[in-house]
Amino acid sequence: MGYALSTTVDRPFEQTLGAVREALQQQGFGVLTEIDLKATLKAKLDVDVEPQVILGACRPPLAHAALQAEPSVGLLLPCNVVVRASGAESTVVEALDPATMVDLTGNEALSDVATDAKGRLQAALEALTAP
Amino acid sequence: MGYALSTTVDRPFEQTLGAVREALQQQGFGVLTEIDLKATLKAKLDVDVEPQVILGACRPPLAHAALQAEPSVGLLLPCNVVVRASGAESTVVEALDPATMVDLTGNEALSDVATDAKGRLQAALEALTAP
Repeated sequence: MGYALSTTVDRPFEQTLGAVREALQQQGFGVLTEIDLKATLKAKLDVDVEPQVILGACRPPLAHAALQAEPSVGLLLPCNVVVRASGAESTVVEALDPATMVDLTGNEALSDVATDAKGRLQAALEALTAP
Repeated sequence: MGYALSTTVDRPFEQTLGAVREALQQQGFGVLTEIDLKATLKAKLDVDVEPQVILGACRPPLAHAALQAEPSVGLLLPCNVVVRASGAESTVVEALDPATMVDLTGNEALSDVATDAKGRLQAALEALTAP
């Protein structure tokens, strides 16, 4: 899975979701959007899936720098962080690898932004399983 | 720009934004998220950029099918549609090409979903410049 940074946390979904919000904030990301995928699919299709929330994380200085390097980069913003239950006591947390911004655009001017964002997201994921 | 479907509309930003919402709805997409990038960057960094909004478009049956094929696909949802001013009387409208879902994941089981989504997004963009 080359497009995801991923970790698995041995805690229930709701508790992990709160910890993810806190970890993102610690790394300077705001959460601009939030999609409760389970609720959306239940409401629209009446199907049941495991609890899953998509958070749209954004660090404004990085977004601004990215826009200046690549006018269409809004298509790849904000950075999605997915929190999804994997049973009652286990939760998967994934972030879209910012390196995909460089891969998809072919624009090396985005490299510094992508590297900075990736380091922060990795630190946020690591904080979730820190002792 | 292999990652974007794109069109330019000879109408002001606000008017085009309304037309984009309508065109997405006509193609069966709901707008789940909305980021006013100009307002966000002004509030957080006190910088001025051209009007730009990122809409998160989702067609629930496609999202559900994608999730069943690729558990981590929430990282690539919803499909971003960017509306951005290019002067007073011209607006650029771009959508993330759903084919990138297949490219990034390497999962051919997403091909049908991506093809369906791409056809609908192309139709929505074409509707904006239809006579």
